[in-house]
Amino acid sequence: MYKLVLIRHGESTWNLENRFTGWTDVELTATGVEQARQAGRLLKEAGYEFDVAYTSVLKRAIHTLNHCLDTMDRDWLPVVKDWRLNERHYGGLQGLNKADMAKQYGDAQVLVWRRSYDTPPPSLESDDPRGQRQDPRYARLAPEQIPLTECLKDTVARVLPCWNEAIAPAIKAGQRIVLAAHGNSIRALVKYLDNIGDDDIVGVNIPNGIPLVYELDADLKPIKSYYLGDAEAAAKAAAAVASQGKA
Amino acid sequence: MYKLVLIRHGESTWNLENRFTGWTDVELTATGVEQARQAGRLLKEAGYEFDVAYTSVLKRAIHTLNHCLDTMDRDWLPVVKDWRLNERHYGGLQGLNKADMAKQYGDAQVLVWRRSYDTPPPSLESDDPRGQRQDPRYARLAPEQIPLTECLKDTVARVLPCWNEAIAPAIKAGQRIVLAAHGNSIRALVKYLDNIGDDDIVGVNIPNGIPLVYELDADLKPIKSYYLGDAEAAAKAAAAVASQGKA
Repeated sequence: MYKLVLIRHGESTWNLENRFTGWTDVELTATGVEQARQAGRLLKEAGYEFDVAYTSVLKRAIHTLNHCLDTMDRDWLPVVKDWRLNERHYGGLQGLNKADMAKQYGDAQVLVWRRSYDTPPPSLESDDPRGQRQDPRYARLAPEQIPLTECLKDTVARVLPCWNEAIAPAIKAGQRIVLAAHGNSIRALVKYLDNIGDDDIVGVNIPNGIPLVYELDADLKPIKSYYLGDAEAAAKAAAAVASQGKA
Repeated sequence: MYKLVLIRHGESTWNLENRFTGWTDVELTATGVEQARQAGRLLKEAGYEFDVAYTSVLKRAIHTLNHCLDTMDRDWLPVVKDWRLNERHYGGLQGLNKADMAKQYGDAQVLVWRRSYDTPPPSLESDDPRGQRQDPRYARLAPEQIPLTECLKDTVARVLPCWNEAIAPAIKAGQRIVLAAHGNSIRALVKYLDNIGDDDIVGVNIPNGIPLVYELDADLKPIKSYYLGDAEAAAKAAAAVASQGKA
């Protein structure tokens, strides 16, 4: 049996401001740093050990991982930073306030943008300064690999190659993995692992900074999954994520 | 022509307490964090870009690198953590105060322990709790690879394989490298690059947290090397390192 631990980054400045973030590279808040450290304390108290850590190329996830590993006194673990674990790209919504958008376009439209499986938000223009086509961290990618918007289906389509090519083989080789990423890149993994239907994934919300443990069988099928720590607090935090897009 | 940037970690708690540190995994002080951020500012202002970063498996170097990269807004760079870039192992001196040892054994003896090329300090016993043979970060090494003490010659002997196998080929492949490490692992590299004799390396001291730039030719022979920022401040900081072992 294998264990995999997923952690959504701690609260970011744009979580606090209730803005669509996507690939915008915002900082953690002081609360977010504390959430990351608390995740580390929970993992340490429960005796978790890891061989390698994965994260995205966005600093809110990288810093969450760093603070978590530091709290565990495991700063020395190898870390793989993979752009395919980035948050879903929010296209033309990046930077805009979720509640403002709900007032302007209605709760239903924002829910579609936030949670529809296959309808992406409006696309960025390719030269929009909010886009990433000039960002050196993506310089090795072909322009068409750098999204201008994404629905969750698009996110799944780039997260799964990272799972299949890197993470799953590592787990099968006995590597104990902790992965710090984002609400939607983790939802993409959860959808795949738990075989959740396109319509049902809308109801799945990932709270910030709480370790989500998957126990996997030899074929990497989930035996069970659970949040570490206070289950009620995790459920409340997930419900708060769900309500962010309401006017 | 290639460029390589070496950075000794910022001030650590045991630098501040003037204790022999070696492989003991101590934290940066607030001053050390600020030095790391200042290194990042200098590199950013001078327009440096990197493709990959190297560091040791000790947190004072890892955190120095993290703060430096964060200040450069380059948190996303790949980082290789290699135990062969660790500080020289200080054996039975680890944890002891440098000035106390000078009072007890004399300045000359402490200078031999600190700077002799081929005389190691007294060895740790293999079961000494100050040793690393139970430390999980070294679990993949053979016991005899985990030192109980080292002279600089021993440190050179483990740093150079890292240079020859990993860093030098990467530089020749066009990778721009920043390396955050330790006083003696950097002295080992400087000795090799500048072809400094066994007797002359005693006079080389590396200040904390100041980027040391090497410009290298196609064969990785130095064309020139210099500290970024205030040259006088760098010389003063190096002189302060030299005087730490005096009663």
